[in-house]
Formats: sequence, C-alpha cells, structure tokens
Amino acid sequence: SRFSHILRTFGKWFICFMIGVTVGAIAYVVKTCVESVQEFKYESSEKYIQNGQKAVGFLVYYSINVLFAITASLVIIPVGQIAAGSGIPEVKGYLNGIRIPHSMNIKTMIGKLISLILAYSSGAILGPEGPMIHIGSMIGGAIGQVKSKTFKWYPKILWKYHNDRDRRDFISTGAAAGVAAAFGAPIGGVLFGFEEASSFWSRQLTWRTFFACLIATFTTNLILQGFQVQLHDYGVLTFGFSQEYLYRYVELIAFMGIGVCGGLMGAFFVYCNARLSKWRSSFFQNKSVYWRIIEVFVFITISSTMLYMSASFTTCRSIESVEPPWDSPLQNDTTFVRFFCEETEYNDMAGLSFNSLDAALRLLYSRSGNIFSIKTLAVFTLMSFFLTTVTSGLMLASGLFIPMMLVGGTFGRLVGQIGVKIFSRAYPPIDPSIYAMVGSSAMMAGFSRMTISLAIIMVELTEGTQYMVPVILSVMTAKWVGDIFNESIYEHLMEQKCYPFLPSQPPQSMIKFGITDVMKTEVISLYEVEKVSRIIQVLQSNKHHGFPVIEKPQQVSDDLIDEGIYCGLILRSQLIILLNYHIFCHEQPQLPNYGRRRTNSNVKQRRWGKATDYGHIPADGRMNYKVMAQALARHFPPIHEMNISKEDIENMYIDLRPYMNLSSVVANETFSFGEGYNLFRTMGLRHMPVVNKRNEVVGFVTRKDLL
Amino acid sequence: SRFSHILRTFGKWFICFMIGVTVGAIAYVVKTCVESVQEFKYESSEKYIQNGQKAVGFLVYYSINVLFAITASLVIIPVGQIAAGSGIPEVKGYLNGIRIPHSMNIKTMIGKLISLILAYSSGAILGPEGPMIHIGSMIGGAIGQVKSKTFKWYPKILWKYHNDRDRRDFISTGAAAGVAAAFGAPIGGVLFGFEEASSFWSRQLTWRTFFACLIATFTTNLILQGFQVQLHDYGVLTFGFSQEYLYRYVELIAFMGIGVCGGLMGAFFVYCNARLSKWRSSFFQNKSVYWRIIEVFVFITISSTMLYMSASFTTCRSIESVEPPWDSPLQNDTTFVRFFCEETEYNDMAGLSFNSLDAALRLLYSRSGNIFSIKTLAVFTLMSFFLTTVTSGLMLASGLFIPMMLVGGTFGRLVGQIGVKIFSRAYPPIDPSIYAMVGSSAMMAGFSRMTISLAIIMVELTEGTQYMVPVILSVMTAKWVGDIFNESIYEHLMEQKCYPFLPSQPPQSMIKFGITDVMKTEVISLYEVEKVSRIIQVLQSNKHHGFPVIEKPQQVSDDLIDEGIYCGLILRSQLIILLNYHIFCHEQPQLPNYGRRRTNSNVKQRRWGKATDYGHIPADGRMNYKVMAQALARHFPPIHEMNISKEDIENMYIDLRPYMNLSSVVANETFSFGEGYNLFRTMGLRHMPVVNKRNEVVGFVTRKDLL
Repeated sequence: SRFSHILRTFGKWFICFMIGVTVGAIAYVVKTCVESVQEFKYESSEKYIQNGQKAVGFLVYYSINVLFAITASLVIIPVGQIAAGSGIPEVKGYLNGIRIPHSMNIKTMIGKLISLILAYSSGAILGPEGPMIHIGSMIGGAIGQVKSKTFKWYPKILWKYHNDRDRRDFISTGAAAGVAAAFGAPIGGVLFGFEEASSFWSRQLTWRTFFACLIATFTTNLILQGFQVQLHDYGVLTFGFSQEYLYRYVELIAFMGIGVCGGLMGAFFVYCNARLSKWRSSFFQNKSVYWRIIEVFVFITISSTMLYMSASFTTCRSIESVEPPWDSPLQNDTTFVRFFCEETEYNDMAGLSFNSLDAALRLLYSRSGNIFSIKTLAVFTLMSFFLTTVTSGLMLASGLFIPMMLVGGTFGRLVGQIGVKIFSRAYPPIDPSIYAMVGSSAMMAGFSRMTISLAIIMVELTEGTQYMVPVILSVMTAKWVGDIFNESIYEHLMEQKCYPFLPSQPPQSMIKFGITDVMKTEVISLYEVEKVSRIIQVLQSNKHHGFPVIEKPQQVSDDLIDEGIYCGLILRSQLIILLNYHIFCHEQPQLPNYGRRRTNSNVKQRRWGKATDYGHIPADGRMNYKVMAQALARHFPPIHEMNISKEDIENMYIDLRPYMNLSSVVANETFSFGEGYNLFRTMGLRHMPVVNKRNEVVGFVTRKDLL
Repeated sequence: SRFSHILRTFGKWFICFMIGVTVGAIAYVVKTCVESVQEFKYESSEKYIQNGQKAVGFLVYYSINVLFAITASLVIIPVGQIAAGSGIPEVKGYLNGIRIPHSMNIKTMIGKLISLILAYSSGAILGPEGPMIHIGSMIGGAIGQVKSKTFKWYPKILWKYHNDRDRRDFISTGAAAGVAAAFGAPIGGVLFGFEEASSFWSRQLTWRTFFACLIATFTTNLILQGFQVQLHDYGVLTFGFSQEYLYRYVELIAFMGIGVCGGLMGAFFVYCNARLSKWRSSFFQNKSVYWRIIEVFVFITISSTMLYMSASFTTCRSIESVEPPWDSPLQNDTTFVRFFCEETEYNDMAGLSFNSLDAALRLLYSRSGNIFSIKTLAVFTLMSFFLTTVTSGLMLASGLFIPMMLVGGTFGRLVGQIGVKIFSRAYPPIDPSIYAMVGSSAMMAGFSRMTISLAIIMVELTEGTQYMVPVILSVMTAKWVGDIFNESIYEHLMEQKCYPFLPSQPPQSMIKFGITDVMKTEVISLYEVEKVSRIIQVLQSNKHHGFPVIEKPQQVSDDLIDEGIYCGLILRSQLIILLNYHIFCHEQPQLPNYGRRRTNSNVKQRRWGKATDYGHIPADGRMNYKVMAQALARHFPPIHEMNISKEDIENMYIDLRPYMNLSSVVANETFSFGEGYNLFRTMGLRHMPVVNKRNEVVGFVTRKDLL
C-alpha cells in the first residue's frame, strides 16, 4: 500500500511532466507558424507599398487576412461553437465543478489550435493566451486520463487517476502550463491557476503545477533557441531600464491615475462586450452558421481597412529625429516600420498597425522619448479599443490579453508623452516607456480583474522587478475602480453562457436566509435495498447525478414512524454500472434497527451508541472496489440496451449498501444559507442532502440552488 | 446592511494598510540600527588591526559582540522563551488553529524586536527574516484587534473584527508583510503566506495581503531613500548578469547536482538541529535560566574567535589580480575588506567572516571569477554551517534564511570556481556567481522545503528573472531530496514544542481507519435547557472549548428511547458570558417533539419534514447578537468571582438554544478517517461532534484526536 502510494504520486509528477512538454511544444508550434506567416504577409505587401503600388499592397495584405480569418472561422464549424472565443470561461467553469459538454475534448482542442494559428496570423487584433489556456487544460485532461471519448478509447492503465478530483487537478495544471508557455512566465502561470482559473487548490497541486509550468517554458525555450546556450527566456519583451533613476515618487500619482483610467476603460469594455454579445445572440439565433462567417468577413474587411488606412494617412518621420534615452544609446533592437516612407524615415502609425502585435508592443515599451507622435497614439488607442471590442465575440479562437496590453500600452504611452511635453524641463526627463507598461497592466487588470498573477506576469515579461510598485499600484487601482461598475469579462461571459459559477463567497444578499429556503424539497431517494424497476424508472425520469439512499420507513411505536433516515449517497454512474453488470439480489431482510437504544438498557447512565457497521454487508463478488473504479472511467450503453430481462426488472433488487458513499457530507436543516454555501463550496460538493434533527432527509441542495 | 458590509470591507483594507506601514517602518528601524552598529564595530576594530594591533582589534570586536549578544539574551527573560528563536513555528501553529499562549502579545513583540536588533548586531551568523515574520504577525494581530491583553484594554470600536477568523487573516497578512519588508519582496511575501505560513487562505485574503506587502516594502523604501526619487528596491542584492550569455544547458546538470547537495545538507542540518535541541532541552531542564545566558556567552566566544581567526590565518590577495567578468568591467560596488592587508590588497576570508552578512552575500554573488580562493570557500562553508547549526537554538531572536543563504552561496560558489578551474578553456567562461545563487536557493529549500515562494523571493532579491530555470530546478531537487530523509525544520520544531499541527493531507498510515476509531467516546454534553449548577460543574471539571448541546432523552414508545439527539454546539466562552450576565431562566417546558412524524399523517405519500424552527425561541433581552459578539472579545473573571447566588445555582436554568451554533458541521459515524480529517481540516474546525444514524451524539473529535 505504501509502495502503491509512492507509485501513484510519482505517476502524477510524470503526467505533469508530460503536460509541460506537450504544452510547451504546442506553444512553440503556434509561435513559429504565426511568425513565419506574418513575416511573409508584411514582407510581400511592403514590397508593393515601397514601389508606390499602395493599392496592390493593400490587396495582398487584405486577401491574406481574409483567407486566414475565414478559414479560422470555418474550422470551428465541425468542432462546435465551444472552440471559438478564448475558452477561459469554459476552463473556469469546469474547474468550478460545472460539466460543460465537449469543453475538454481532443476534437475541440485540435479545432481550437488550428483556428488559433490561422486567426492569429490574420492580422486581427487578438492574442493567443486565452486559447492557449484552454488548449493547455484540454491537454491536461487528455494526458491525465489517457482516454478519449472522441475515439472511444478507454485503456485500463492509469485507471487510478480516472476520478473527478485528479482530472480536475490535471486540468488546472494544464491551464497554468498554457499561461506559462504563452507568456514565458512560469510563476505567473502557477499564480494564474491559483488566482483565476481554479476554485479548488491544494499545496500539492501548487508544486506539481509549478513543475509543469517550468517544463513548459523550458521546452519552448529549448526548441526556439537550440540546445546550446540559454540566453533569455522566450516570450519576453525585454524592457530596458535606467540604472541611474527609475521614477519620482510624485509620478506614482500619475500611475494611479492611469490605473483609474484602466479600470474605467476595462469596465466600459466589459459593458460594450456584454451588450454586443446580447445583440449577437439575438441576431444570429435563428440564422445559419454561415452568417457568422459573413460576420467574420465583414469584420476583417473593416479591421484591415482601418489598420492600413490609418498608416497611409500618417506623415513620415525621420529616423534621425528619434532621440535616444538620456542615459544610454538607442536600443539597437528597435526596428522601425518603413511602410511607404523613404529609407531614412519611418511611419510611426504603421509601427503599431502594420506590424505583428509583439513587435508593436516592443516599440511601445522602447525607452526613446519621442518615437511616436501624440496624435498617432491617441488615434491608435481609440482604434485598437474599438477593434478589440468587436473581435472578441467572433467565431474564431481568440484571446484578449495581448490586445488589451496593446490598448493599455498605447494609452499609457500617450499619457507619458503628454507628461514629457508638459514637464519638458524635468531632469532626468519623464520616461514614457514606464507609462506604457503601467498602462498595459492597468488595462489588463481593468477587464480581467486579475491582481497578483497579472503583476507577476508583467514582471516576468519585462524581466525585471524594478517597476513592481508602479505596476502593482495601477493593477490594484484598476481592479477597484472596475469592480465599482461591473464584474470581470469572464464572469459576464459565464453568466451569458448560463454556466452556474459559484464564487468563493456566498452572495451578500442571501446572507440572512436559511439553507431550507433554497433547497429542493422534492427529493428523489432510494431505499437501501431497492427494486430494479424503481431504479430504472428513477434513472429514466430525471437527469440528477446523485440520489440519497434512505432507510425504509419503520413503525417504531403505535403512533410514531421513522421515515427516510439518511444512510448515504449513490451516484447515477454507479447505478448504471450495477445495472450493466446485473449486480442483482433477491430481497434481503432489512438489517436490525441498529443504532437505536432499547429502554431496558441502562438509560440513567449516559452511554453512546455503537457505530453502525456496514462492513459486514459483503459486496457482490463481481463488483469490488477496483472493478467499480475502473468501470467509472468508462461509458455504458443506455439502459434499454443492457439486456436486463423483464423478470429481473420486476422481481430483483439491488443492494446499494456496499456501494453508496457513507462519507458524504450533509447539512442540517438548521444551517444558515451562508454556512451551507461555505460547506458546499469549500468541500467541492456536487450534491448535499439536508437532514432534520432525526436525520431524515428533508431536502437536497445542488449547485443551481445556491445561485 | 449593504452599507455596513462596505464599511466592514473598507475597514479591513484600512487595517491592512496600517499593518503594512507599521511593519515597513519596523523593518526600516531594524535595518538602520543594525547597519550603524555593525559599521561602528567593524570600523573601530579595523583601525587597530591595520595598525598591527591585532589583539586589541579582536578585543574590541569581541567585547562589542559579547555585549550585544548577552543583552539580546537578557531581554528574553522578562518576556518569556516564546520570544526566542525565529517564531515561524509559532506563526504556523497559530495559523493552523493552535492556541499558543503569549505567542501573539505586544509584550512578546517588543522583547523580540529589541532582542533581534541586538542579536543581529552581535556578529553571530543569524538573520532577521524569521523574527520579522513573527513580529509582523504580532503587529497584524494587534492592529487587527485594537485591543491588548497585556494592557487590559478592550475598546468597543472595531468589535466586528474581534472574531477568530478575522484575527487569523490579519495575522496571516502581518506575517506576509514581515517577509515582504525583510526581503524587499512583496510578491514573495504573499506567496510565503500562502505556501508556508497559512493553513487557510482565501482569494480576498490574497488581495489584501498583496496590498499590505506592497505598502510594507514601499514604506521601507520611502524612509530609506528619502521622498525624492525611486532608484531600486530596498533589500536587494542587485545581481549583475551578462547580456550575451547566461549558461549552457549542460550546466543544468550541475545546478541539479547543487540541488541534491542542498537537499542533503538541509536534511543533515535539520537532523543536527533536532538532536541539538533534544540535548539542550534535557540539559537545561532543571537549571536556572541564567545557564542559557552562559550558553550564549560561550557560543559567542567560539563564534567570534572562529570568524576572526579564520581571517587572520588567510593570506592577502592583490586587488589587481581580480579579473573582471569577461563581458563587462568589474562591478564598481564591489567593496573589498582589507583586514590586516596592504592598501592594494584584500583578505578574501575577511570579506565573508569579518563583514556584515549582506555585504558578504553581495561579494559571493559578484561576477568576477577569481575573487575568492577555493580554500577560503571550502573552509567558510564548513564553518558557517557549523555556526548556523549551533546558533539556531540559542535564547535569542534569530532567523535562518540569511545564514542559510550564506552557507549555500559559499558552497555554490565553491562548486562554480572548481568548475572554472576544470573547464578553464570554456568560452564564454563558467560564471561562478550563478552557482552561488543556485547554491543559496538549494540550501534554503533544503532546510525549509519551501518551493515557489522561495523561487520568487530569490527572483525579487536579485531583481531579474533570467536565472529562474536554474533556481527553480535546484529548489525542486533540494526539496525532493530533503523530503526523503526528514521533514522541514519547522515541522521538527513544532513537533518538539508539542504543537499539534494538522497538515493539509491526512497521514497515509491512517487512511484505512474510520472516524470512530479516533474519536473520543466520553463526550461531555449539555441539554438544551441546562441547570446552572451542571454548567458550572462542567466548566470547572475540564478545559474543553466546546460542548455539544443535545435534546433531553425522550421515551418515544414503551421500549424505545431517543437519547442525546444532537442540536448544536456551544462554546465555553459563550457559557462564561451567559453566566457572567446572569442570563438565567426558570425551567421551560421542553418544546414539542418537532420534526418527528406521527403515523396518522399520510405515510403512503413520501413527504418531508419541516425545518425545526428555533426562530421563535427569543433570546434574552439583555443578550442579543451584538452584545454577545462584543462580549466575546473580552475576558471575564473566573466563575467563583461572578457573584452568582447559591439559589440561582441550585434552582435556575440557562436556555442555550438562542445562543448555540446551529450551523456546526458534524460527521457521521460511518465516515472514513480521511473524509473526517478533510472535513475538519478544510472547514477549519476546532470541534466536530460525531453522530450516528439517529443523530445521537456518539463521539467528539478535536484536533488532537486527528494526529
């Protein structure tokens, strides 16, 4: 037993290793594919632009974009709508305990991955992080279970991990590894898993997730940089900073102001997005799915035109006029976008709009003070905000982090450059790059309401802890301000998709209720030894996942009856297995009324009852613990295909006592709503029977009752 | 109600702000005091040494050390032994739910603070982090409660926070702020709180703690650097790194090897420490406390002599022979210690042994390859390991983090410099500074078994994420290796101090037991309306903190009796309040047998009972919810001083029903040990009644039963 425990633990670490490697490799594939496609696109259209053939350049650019976006959208159709969007609501919902059909399938994963690569290459303002989180969690689910519903493949190996808890843990790990690989931020990944994605988190899980995140980041690095020398982490926006001076304390007020703006803009984004989604769902309700592809086409036309035109109408700036930072030479990795300009000139708008998002961000974070004109920044802030809002509901795999970084970064840089103008005599001068970074953090916090994981991701992205205080300050402010107006985008999306998400605290408005005010009073329960016919009838007449098992009513005296004494909980899946394997018996005599004391025992002295002993009820020989656990991982045919003879149905019984869960947590009817909620939420329950003082079942609480 | 909720939340944030400011200011005081004392000490003795008066120099150095160490030890006596050591076991124990007398008092805090400043100045190898964590948590407890047992001051303001849960949260926050201020690592502080210190952690707590940590770090910075310009974070060992090259992948094997060594050394340290503590406790058992001061004196003599002599016997090295790193000039903040050498020379051993610990670490992490001789490093590794082992049990406030960083850093640098020798033809050359940093991480992980918080602290200390992979790799390896041999130092200390600590997972050996195998079967319970005399007798005859309240036995039929039906839980403190305020009544008729169904109701149809309604039992007018909550924060005189007349004791009753906790979680006797443990641990219970199928109390589980 001790050896099997060690083996089991080791197995978990190995699975986490595999999750890390796989997620890391996928992140590499996404990055490489997208980079080469984007490079091809910009190079081929720039060739025409610099020859003066602006219209041809636009056509090349536009047609590549449309091609990719439409394909990305078409890929979604066979896989199902669940593969569109970021997938973070699905992951959060699943880890909160909600079963969302198809959300963790291999098929969904493949569709999402292809759609992501295509969509990300299409030049629309969207990011890979959200989909990577979903893909990571799907990989976690798949590797952890080594089975596949899609391929109807249920191997017996690793059946020990085929339970809800381990599956949930592996999915958490996968989601965190997805973040880690996408951002190159292993610690940020772990914290994202803890803070944002998972509702249940243990210390053991922290370590394993940490390990998987490290492996994921490392794998991507290893493939990207070759196996020789480690230079720096992948995914990093290496952020130059001054050794002499960072910022004045008085600038913290400005950073806080950016935080306030980030919160407001984030809340406004959530509001717009919610309205737009409502409009979309009503508009597309009864229409063919191809309307959604037309929507993508219309959008990509608008987006390509806006991005291209904005660059076209911008005047060129001389590269020589760019001032290096006051304390160091110009960063030599600053690459300017020429667009239609002369060789010694560059187009500052094209650097943002006619560029990959990573490169645009790198420009925004560069330390030279006057690299952008204020007009460009103002225009691009509005434009990117608009485009991001519209993109995020399209039928494509798309994430919001990088776009929001871009919007916030542009806005922050705008504030910084205005500051430089106003306080032009300040020495050392104000550094607008910090403002850009702070703006990104604030905007991301404003829409996602993440705090500590976001701060850590920013630190890991920029490879330095120097700007921790400004980043944290703006993140906290943005979160506070945003929370005044509405909830995070994920909560809104989950509400809209009708996922019954349970937050960690009970809703304030319900705090005065009792648990009896919310419970279902119509409980479908089974006797300890129950007729096959009734079990089949119960299973077919409803879709509940669990049923309380009760004692048969007993006449305890002339006028008193004990009815529905609670014994344990049995799951639908267990009942189906028992039916499938025909674990029937003839009716057994009810066990003696154990636990009840007779008067003739010594009542004067307070003695306590002996534990009810279910141990002597033997499980059927065909169905021991191991067989049951292995069977739980499989899927069974519907009941009418199980070849149960009519005679069996009418005459036979199933003894549920050896199989029911004797350790199920119950609430007493005297519980307050808050206590019931906490018990349910903290213990991660799916069903909670409510009993009265006599331990008779008086109600039943499921997730939906608590909302 | 909604307004009061907002006010309450705002109050919590404000308290966290105050905790942050206070802890940050204290960290500043500690740092400044220690720095000036150390500077004075080293300067005045170096004056003599450089004049050739080595003996006088030693005397000055030694006498200052002795003076401080003895005073630091004397300070502990009036405050109590609880102020000695690091205090981390006390914090961990408290946050796990153990009441440790005097562990969170203001008196203890003041004593600990003074002892820390004195001890840290005394040149013994000890660090301020552990005590700062304890001090931080005491401040959290004090500010959160705004009351003081020591000063017998119980103001009514903020009584809403006077409950165990809020107090625990504020103490968590304080501990995290302590780490943040000591290391200058706000995120590391939060993660330390989550990973290491706290057993119960919520998302809300994460945000508030994050805020407090940020404020703490920021306060220290603000006072240290003045209010003008922010340059870099305080407490930082700014770690230079190459822009061209970090490490080869093959070096990861070496880092892993260092991790293995760190794990072994950490486990060995824990072993030695445990043996030494055992010896100490048996040796000093029946002796006066002044023997412990003699111990400090003996130790400080040994330590001063060893540190001084080792430097004396080391040959001088020429400053010019120090090679700068291959890709950059010599860091200009490298300060060499001259000791008795010529002006152009330095003493490499004195740089470690005759130097403040921070400065020694900075030298260890400097990038020039040959700053130390291999002999020096080898000698100092052994010496510092020995001295740290002996120090950590002295009657002083002392922490282990910085000493362990030093031991590990010296060892890692040793490995790195040997590597440089062996692979002297490698280009770019091997960088021993990375090895020093990896060694520090491995050693710290080896003794404390922290993982993710440690990695983050190292990242925040060194201001860069470049070496994340080596650090994490060595930390994980060291933890795994260490875990093979024993548990972390804190678990050992807690075991030795007999703190009943409940880990987050049930012990593997108990997994097959049932909850009935561990519960106490002798339960002291009270009736719903109980005689005053019995309550007083129960309170005086034992020290339990909670009692189950049961129904009076009822004859339900001729030969059947319902005995001990569980109703709720009442706390000792509530009983004392009821006694103190004389909330007595004459015996009330027992309520009707609600909840039990009569046969004459329709039994054919399955109907469910109505909730037992305790709402109509009015609470006594003198004792409503608010009065009770305010009274719970106070302390009351012993029962015999409460002026309860003999008549009252003999004739009167107390109706417990309005006051008892109706939402208390119970376990069923059919629970397995693991499920019972999880329920108890996850819900953070102190008492858990065990009931049988009839809801009769059959046992009672407390923390001690689960170990």
